[in-house]
Amino acid sequence: MTAYDGTSYCGFQIQNNGITIQGILNETLSEWLCEEIKTAGASRTDAGVHSRCNVVVFDTGSKIPGEKYAFGLNARLPEDIRIRYSCEVPLDFNPRAAKTVKTYCYRIQNGPFQDPIIRNNHYFCHWKLDIDRMRAAAKDLVGTHDFESFAAVGRSSPTTIRTIYDIKVEKEGEILTITVTGDGFLYNMVRIIAGTLMEIGKGNLPADAVPDMLKAKNRDASGPTAPACGLTLERIEYPDYEFDY
Amino acid sequence: MTAYDGTSYCGFQIQNNGITIQGILNETLSEWLCEEIKTAGASRTDAGVHSRCNVVVFDTGSKIPGEKYAFGLNARLPEDIRIRYSCEVPLDFNPRAAKTVKTYCYRIQNGPFQDPIIRNNHYFCHWKLDIDRMRAAAKDLVGTHDFESFAAVGRSSPTTIRTIYDIKVEKEGEILTITVTGDGFLYNMVRIIAGTLMEIGKGNLPADAVPDMLKAKNRDASGPTAPACGLTLERIEYPDYEFDY
Repeated sequence: MTAYDGTSYCGFQIQNNGITIQGILNETLSEWLCEEIKTAGASRTDAGVHSRCNVVVFDTGSKIPGEKYAFGLNARLPEDIRIRYSCEVPLDFNPRAAKTVKTYCYRIQNGPFQDPIIRNNHYFCHWKLDIDRMRAAAKDLVGTHDFESFAAVGRSSPTTIRTIYDIKVEKEGEILTITVTGDGFLYNMVRIIAGTLMEIGKGNLPADAVPDMLKAKNRDASGPTAPACGLTLERIEYPDYEFDY
Repeated sequence: MTAYDGTSYCGFQIQNNGITIQGILNETLSEWLCEEIKTAGASRTDAGVHSRCNVVVFDTGSKIPGEKYAFGLNARLPEDIRIRYSCEVPLDFNPRAAKTVKTYCYRIQNGPFQDPIIRNNHYFCHWKLDIDRMRAAAKDLVGTHDFESFAAVGRSSPTTIRTIYDIKVEKEGEILTITVTGDGFLYNMVRIIAGTLMEIGKGNLPADAVPDMLKAKNRDASGPTAPACGLTLERIEYPDYEFDY
């Protein structure tokens, strides 16, 4: 289970022209175990997006017990990537294809000036956000819907139907947190939800706009994609597997 | 009122061989106002220590209204320094010499693995901390005492007597926060308090150790100096002045 501060990375997924979390994990494991390791992750988080729980698996011929990889990797990884837990998993376990319940948090600092101490994991919004309007709109997103209006264009999924189990909009001091739990998310879906709820919170869109957005099945119908820095993948559960983390 | 993420700086106070917050403020103001500006700050925070409220003053011949400096500076400063508020102050106001009530927070992540997302403003401690022992010990620090045992050696103050109005030790999830409010602090005093309370929380020192430490008037009697990254200057109040921030 991999936690990272995504600020300095070009996202999770390995690519040729940028430093990625997957790239660092592959290199670190390959060097340590003296064999070529190719990891696979549950979520391909974007550049600047953070994680407290991305689930990463790999095959190896090594005899090191599964639970020791966390300690061994943490001694070798840069300080912005940490393994919170490691164990052996069934050979057929695919962290991306298996049934999951994922929870993302989108964090907003809503105040007159940006707080530099939390700037890398909170989006700064100086427009006053009306949390009651945002909560009302969030309710309309809960359930099983076709979320085509809330997916980035150009990335095709076999289906754009997803189930959102819960959305919480909470505020403590200047910090507003949108917590979304669902069975999976389309590309940029949580950031488009956050961007849409913020437009509703500012009063730029009506609080009852969501049902029409869903009906439109068109990306143009919803709000803007909120910046990556506010987003953190907080939890992944696999209902069909028993991992004791 | 200056907020900063101290991670990349050699502390607040200007020095010849390192980038400091005061240095950046002096340079930025001097370039903007086309005159040499020398700022003075309320607190000379150490390298790696953060602030949400350091009060900084300067003299200028400029006709720019006091409240406009916040906006003008924020457009020119690096993103890890932000001015939250600016105003004209009486000519005799000295932010360091004036009577103050200061509040510092020391933040600890107490869990099995470091959370990389909050690593720059939380000290990571994997030893289990007993919050009840820490709270009991913190009570003995409240009041007017000679804090010589809780000051770094080699820095002389006219007196080592200070008043701590309140210390709160709170926990939410893995995050433990020590909030100390007082009329002023000796060099490293809050970090030594945090380091001592952590040793008591680990069980390495007795929960009733503080009175003897205070009596000893010797730095060797107290616990270690906790690392800088956990410390944030949260609030400065000037009871003799009325600033409406």
